[in-house]
Amino acid sequence: MDDLYHAPDQLPAWGALKSLAERPFSLNTPNALTPARIAAFTCRTASFKLLYATQRIDESTLTTLQELADQSEATGQFLRMKRGAVLNRIVGWPSENRQVLHTAGRDLFRPDPDHPEATAQARKECDKLKIFLDDLDGGRITNSKGEPFTDLINVGIGGSDLGPRAIYMALSAFRLDQRRVHFISNVDPDDAAAVLRELDLSHTLVNVVSKSGTTLETMTNEELVRNAYRRAGLEPSRHFLAVTGAGSPMDDPKRYLRTFHMFDYIGGRYSVTSMVGGLLLGFAIGYENFREFLQGASRVDLAAEQPDIRKNLPLLLALLGIWNRNFLNYPTLAVLPYSQALIRFVAHLQQCDMESNGKSINRHGEKVNYQTGPIVWGEPGTNGQHAFYQLLHQGTTIVPTEFIGFLQNQYNEDLEIEHSTSQEKLVANLLAQVLALASGKADTNPNRAFPGNRPSSLLLAERLTPGTMGELLAIYETKIAFQGFIWNINSFDQEGVQLGKHLSGTMLRHLSGHPEVEAIVDDDAPEVRAILRAAGLE
Amino acid sequence: MDDLYHAPDQLPAWGALKSLAERPFSLNTPNALTPARIAAFTCRTASFKLLYATQRIDESTLTTLQELADQSEATGQFLRMKRGAVLNRIVGWPSENRQVLHTAGRDLFRPDPDHPEATAQARKECDKLKIFLDDLDGGRITNSKGEPFTDLINVGIGGSDLGPRAIYMALSAFRLDQRRVHFISNVDPDDAAAVLRELDLSHTLVNVVSKSGTTLETMTNEELVRNAYRRAGLEPSRHFLAVTGAGSPMDDPKRYLRTFHMFDYIGGRYSVTSMVGGLLLGFAIGYENFREFLQGASRVDLAAEQPDIRKNLPLLLALLGIWNRNFLNYPTLAVLPYSQALIRFVAHLQQCDMESNGKSINRHGEKVNYQTGPIVWGEPGTNGQHAFYQLLHQGTTIVPTEFIGFLQNQYNEDLEIEHSTSQEKLVANLLAQVLALASGKADTNPNRAFPGNRPSSLLLAERLTPGTMGELLAIYETKIAFQGFIWNINSFDQEGVQLGKHLSGTMLRHLSGHPEVEAIVDDDAPEVRAILRAAGLE
Repeated sequence: MDDLYHAPDQLPAWGALKSLAERPFSLNTPNALTPARIAAFTCRTASFKLLYATQRIDESTLTTLQELADQSEATGQFLRMKRGAVLNRIVGWPSENRQVLHTAGRDLFRPDPDHPEATAQARKECDKLKIFLDDLDGGRITNSKGEPFTDLINVGIGGSDLGPRAIYMALSAFRLDQRRVHFISNVDPDDAAAVLRELDLSHTLVNVVSKSGTTLETMTNEELVRNAYRRAGLEPSRHFLAVTGAGSPMDDPKRYLRTFHMFDYIGGRYSVTSMVGGLLLGFAIGYENFREFLQGASRVDLAAEQPDIRKNLPLLLALLGIWNRNFLNYPTLAVLPYSQALIRFVAHLQQCDMESNGKSINRHGEKVNYQTGPIVWGEPGTNGQHAFYQLLHQGTTIVPTEFIGFLQNQYNEDLEIEHSTSQEKLVANLLAQVLALASGKADTNPNRAFPGNRPSSLLLAERLTPGTMGELLAIYETKIAFQGFIWNINSFDQEGVQLGKHLSGTMLRHLSGHPEVEAIVDDDAPEVRAILRAAGLE
Repeated sequence: MDDLYHAPDQLPAWGALKSLAERPFSLNTPNALTPARIAAFTCRTASFKLLYATQRIDESTLTTLQELADQSEATGQFLRMKRGAVLNRIVGWPSENRQVLHTAGRDLFRPDPDHPEATAQARKECDKLKIFLDDLDGGRITNSKGEPFTDLINVGIGGSDLGPRAIYMALSAFRLDQRRVHFISNVDPDDAAAVLRELDLSHTLVNVVSKSGTTLETMTNEELVRNAYRRAGLEPSRHFLAVTGAGSPMDDPKRYLRTFHMFDYIGGRYSVTSMVGGLLLGFAIGYENFREFLQGASRVDLAAEQPDIRKNLPLLLALLGIWNRNFLNYPTLAVLPYSQALIRFVAHLQQCDMESNGKSINRHGEKVNYQTGPIVWGEPGTNGQHAFYQLLHQGTTIVPTEFIGFLQNQYNEDLEIEHSTSQEKLVANLLAQVLALASGKADTNPNRAFPGNRPSSLLLAERLTPGTMGELLAIYETKIAFQGFIWNINSFDQEGVQLGKHLSGTMLRHLSGHPEVEAIVDDDAPEVRAILRAAGLE
């Protein structure tokens, strides 16, 4: 696979883009946004359109971005990833050395999947899920009184929480009657306390999710929840489900009603389409809706093989991001969904993007000389318009934005008020922001003038459904992978989280007085005791 | 008041800080974090400690930041603000020309408030609130069947949503039995649909919040909710409450059970301690808890008069932010609360900070030559550790962070698991992150090395209660105001949101076919029609 690793700043296209960036396209000159430009700068997946005329690019930028994609062999790397290359790796250094096969878990809809073994494993877990859900629906799995389970608590953190939670909230409109999911993630005991006090545990399942079966927060919260069940006189093994790696300390059928497996070739932040998301989504929205979600993702996985960037939406999005990050030097990216259902989608993207591409070392273990992953942030519109859009329009730091919108709402409950529906108002605001950021507006009052020339893209689909949610998720997962390929970094490890983990062990030993975790800094390191003392804890 | 307006880059301290920033303090050199440093670099409010030894500063930086505060007359401006100066203004240009008196609304606890008239108005609204809450508790206000109200829907957006929602969630552990608050903010009709279907409207109050009484989203959602009440055979005027400006189109007692007033000298994003937050907080946690919340805020308002930055926590926090933003050139600020209850606090801060200080024009209407408000973002820890902390530790962009933590939890429900409680694990993780970001760690494997030298502060209190929540809110409100004073910008207007509003009117006219909103761009502007066409809407 190393033969496809290219230092991007050594590629001819990189230098060419540097030159082009000296005079980027201006969005705020008169007639910059011609109808021809707006029509031409549109790209599609099965369900999404990307309108990107409001990026600071022109035909020559696009051509050169295409060259960068070609010279980096971006789609070639993506294909190899899907076929099982060991991409989670740093050449010449100890590293995770794993395949990256989240795509295989949804490659269920054609006769010849890219990685037959991984797809077969996914299929097996899907089949187990279907049986489990049928057993629930058919009354073959009930509580000890023979009553149905109405609620499910998901106990997990990071990839086992953010993605599943985001998608559950996004598709809440498709919930089955009487089915509801709750989340406990934080080791803060108030997280569990607040959730547990609201529930009738006798009708509640608990899904414990940890690939390693050793995640501190999750193991702690599992024990805390088990304790609550025991205090309520309920037998946890009738209520608890496990999603974990085969052979992990959690892989113990006696302790769980059912166990589902996840595999080391799927990273936590890419695991929503595995049983990590599957179990709770199947419970909440039913098996068929979960399959439609997978099918949406698989459509994008396939479309992303296209080498022509104007026909490959995730690749184009990746390249526009690189243009903004490395050549126009914008440090952050705002993702702004005009859909209240996507309220936690950006929190999931923060993980997916920043944990994947917040790296400084390339795939040969060398320090990179260019910027990698940006800071990703955002909240739904129109809410954000009344919050931080002031800075987007008139702040001193320019923020490229990716807007997301839908022409129809989910619940089909709307009202015409003052001659327009709420949905029309929502879409009108969305489109207006795209133009306002780009064009700006002159005004003699300097405080009421808008400089404009602030780039954005707009991702649009008809309606947020299980299928389009799957597409949207895969668009971002694939965009992130493409950026990592081009930046020549390993987007699939997360060594940066280790130091804090180790140091917290040292802190905990001091706090609790127990020698339970091996310290990586000297136990008596003066700064450890000093900060504990300053905090009033020693 | 103009006599206190100083261009910061013309002040001697600004140049001195520029020089100091050429060689800032290194956190990752051996023994950089001495116990003496950690102990010395601590600042307090009544309930909070700020540990700031892990900022890239030394004694000379602090001395020069003190000079910047003195030369900008920061505390002098703050005092004038509290006493009623017309600070919401651009000299020489049409602007809002208003006082900035959110502090007066909580200046209720001493005989001589800074602005007696505004405090008297606040006191009057508080008294009305107490009567209303007593009427609810005493069964004098009920639904048409004589049953108590258990739920309240807050209909508002921006300042009428984010702050109240954040504080409600933060203090949810203090809720009265059977009292629950829900929020409808987005003009996305799915927001209202999802909330309404979960509620028994007959036991639900609706609080409509809009200072102008004309906010598009809020007026639309009010009508949508009223419609749901009528369909349920319920008389809205028995359920609907109003918080609005005196004389606004909403100020119509016939349509509301009770009306509370807000005043033009309190901006939306600073209005949580007015009736905007007061009504729903009083309903949820009771009048006495709401008073404690106000009292916490008022303690900080008073303490922030102290000119010595080492004894003025909000001012110190403001200056450390300016050091990071203008001299070390970090574009963003992550606020990371180690408390699940603060899950929406950062969304509120985004508004409070970015809408206040995301400006490019100073208070004389001139373009500034320096950076103003940063991009503020963040999520609670430990969750964030499993999401974006990878980038914080090893990314190419350095992110200064403000950690927030509490030694005790709220619910007092915890369990010792493997020799430590969840709360101990939470605090251990928090303190570990502060040290890990600062010190880093060498490693022969470049992918497992941590550069360190990444600055942070830590705000610590004993427990998140109404009183400490009030302090925390006021610490940030005051920090933001101080930064605006020093940057010489108007932190109290939001002209940057107007262009989007106007353009959305134009879009809406096209979408709905109705000539209801006056267009500020030519109706037939080619880009308007072109984007509608590209979106599939024309």
